Amino acid sequence: MLNFEFWNPTRVLFGTDYLQRLPDLLRTDNAKTVLIVYGGGSAVKSGLLQRVLDNLSDFRAFIFSGVEANPEYNTLMKAVELARSEKVDFIIALGGGSVIDGVKFISGAIHYHGDPWEVLAKKNNEAFNQAVPFGTVLTLPATGSEVNSGAVINRSELKEKRTMGGPQFFPKFSICDPTVVATIPERQLANGIVDAYMHTLEQYLTTSYGNLLQEREAEAILATLIEISDVVHNPSDYKLAYNFMLCASHALNGSLRCGAVTDWATHMIGHELTALYGIDHARTLAIIGPRLYEVQFDLKKDKLEQYGRRIFGIEGSKDEVAHLAIERTESFFQSLGIETRLSAYTDSQQDLIPHVKAKFTERGWTEMGQNGSLKMAEVEEILLNCR
Amino acid sequence: MLNFEFWNPTRVLFGTDYLQRLPDLLRTDNAKTVLIVYGGGSAVKSGLLQRVLDNLSDFRAFIFSGVEANPEYNTLMKAVELARSEKVDFIIALGGGSVIDGVKFISGAIHYHGDPWEVLAKKNNEAFNQAVPFGTVLTLPATGSEVNSGAVINRSELKEKRTMGGPQFFPKFSICDPTVVATIPERQLANGIVDAYMHTLEQYLTTSYGNLLQEREAEAILATLIEISDVVHNPSDYKLAYNFMLCASHALNGSLRCGAVTDWATHMIGHELTALYGIDHARTLAIIGPRLYEVQFDLKKDKLEQYGRRIFGIEGSKDEVAHLAIERTESFFQSLGIETRLSAYTDSQQDLIPHVKAKFTERGWTEMGQNGSLKMAEVEEILLNCR
Repeated sequence: MLNFEFWNPTRVLFGTDYLQRLPDLLRTDNAKTVLIVYGGGSAVKSGLLQRVLDNLSDFRAFIFSGVEANPEYNTLMKAVELARSEKVDFIIALGGGSVIDGVKFISGAIHYHGDPWEVLAKKNNEAFNQAVPFGTVLTLPATGSEVNSGAVINRSELKEKRTMGGPQFFPKFSICDPTVVATIPERQLANGIVDAYMHTLEQYLTTSYGNLLQEREAEAILATLIEISDVVHNPSDYKLAYNFMLCASHALNGSLRCGAVTDWATHMIGHELTALYGIDHARTLAIIGPRLYEVQFDLKKDKLEQYGRRIFGIEGSKDEVAHLAIERTESFFQSLGIETRLSAYTDSQQDLIPHVKAKFTERGWTEMGQNGSLKMAEVEEILLNCR
Repeated sequence: MLNFEFWNPTRVLFGTDYLQRLPDLLRTDNAKTVLIVYGGGSAVKSGLLQRVLDNLSDFRAFIFSGVEANPEYNTLMKAVELARSEKVDFIIALGGGSVIDGVKFISGAIHYHGDPWEVLAKKNNEAFNQAVPFGTVLTLPATGSEVNSGAVINRSELKEKRTMGGPQFFPKFSICDPTVVATIPERQLANGIVDAYMHTLEQYLTTSYGNLLQEREAEAILATLIEISDVVHNPSDYKLAYNFMLCASHALNGSLRCGAVTDWATHMIGHELTALYGIDHARTLAIIGPRLYEVQFDLKKDKLEQYGRRIFGIEGSKDEVAHLAIERTESFFQSLGIETRLSAYTDSQQDLIPHVKAKFTERGWTEMGQNGSLKMAEVEEILLNCR
């Protein structure tokens, strides 16, 4: 049994009609000059941006649009410049995980006097010690970024994705309205489900340290995601949307990792597929995850067996159940319209392994995953097998 | 599906050896003069009080002992006097739910200039608007008070129990060390399990509003409590103790009530059994709960069926499964050595119904429970049936 600390101060307002609470929420944080950051035109077309602005009449408000699906460092730095010049003291992230992640970076970079990329490159998160407070209005359930303090930032010109985080990066509040799900394209809904599912597996499919409750809480999320996965075809079904949005939050609000040994190697390898080929983040997880479980089968088979029995009701010997659990996971992703083989996304795979080896070596990553059990040889095997 | 807000800013430090973090935690809150509040001699005998004091050498520290199992208003007011005269700016609750509940009251009353009982009587929680910050060192898993902002205060001379709470009453931190479980008597361990179990049922055994995830998270706690219930006989088993302590916290950290319609009538009736006969709080829940489920069977049978199938694996028709689920619940309590009939605790039951009717009438409580569905006639029926 592992020691853990848990702290999550984000105020969650979950359901309909909470936008009208924005003025009160902003006053609580003494906000005067607010920057609204969003992605593309959907926030405009859906009318959501206007509804946010309608609640900001008592505040100076600026908007910044154009944050990409994998938020780009160079784009975010333009928002930092705007925030600095207008002396922004509060930020509203209006979007999904990419916008929220981007706002976490903007929040930290505004009052930082050096080169912000250096902070990311050196994982020197404490350097962002005067983070500007921010809240979120969630438009896409997937990453859980609305209830945690982590972010992933992209820099395409370097083919780099970097993680950042720290206690200063919890949103002050998150307004989560499941009715937004009705406006999300099927492709992104499928991505969101896989993302939340894989976030859960990264904290669950490892060696058990006897944290029986968190294991069951992880299983609660997995079972619910499977139960509501028809939201991909019925995004207007409020019950499906409500539970989908909540699962994505609970998968990464920090509770599941408590007392668990976590993995995250699927994410680390998957990030390279996005950097190299531009494959959607969630799809990279669907490509890498099942192959990683095969390569680390002996290490993970006890938990794979528990997962197979409790989530899929599979019966048989330990090895049979564990193998079938991997198959059923892959089939679940495919049932959402997600391809799980790299060949479905790109023909030019010859540069993949050299690229990943070079990047991991450059960063000094010689081992990763559960207790550092995954070495470069196994990463190569996974990449070969996922073609 | 119901809207909800969730906010829980308590920092949880769960596991061994966190007491040494006390000085840092206190400095974070600018503490200078600390009052340690505890109950009886067990905190002294176990050495825990001394270990706390050993970490407070940089602070002015005072101790107040003698908080009862159902914290008494008159006792707590003595601590309030001490805190006022020594200008205490931080409180450490060293104990279980009673001590922590008591500290919440002390925290609110110190800077309140009127009669604090009036605040409780009128449920005017906002009047305690300058609460003194406090943290907890948990010694008895049961009530979840270490991770929420509510409290129950007793005033024996009036035969009254009153609830209080509010966002100002979240602990700043809670140090939860499962090794303390080894020192707890069997009777209190059994009480703790029933308390956590019934807290979960109060938020689960109601009409479903489609909050599929929280229902499964409630089931995760129930299944884990059953799995680890042998902690009653093996309190030194760290795995059992760890999961027991965590279940009790998660049962009442505010997450389960999100999106759920809750009940709490078992608690409201049970409080009167404690006030009248001095029966342990958890045991009153074990007496009332099963009888309440029978009296409100039609209202609760859908969820009782789900509970019976998922937790106990019962098969059969809806009504069969639902009835057996109540039986299995009662058997579970009995397996812990808890009597579930009032006659096991007192021979003088003739004043019970008049007392409860008088008290509820005095408070204007004409309906309670799930959506106010339980009227006085059903309360009488429950009280008759629980004899």
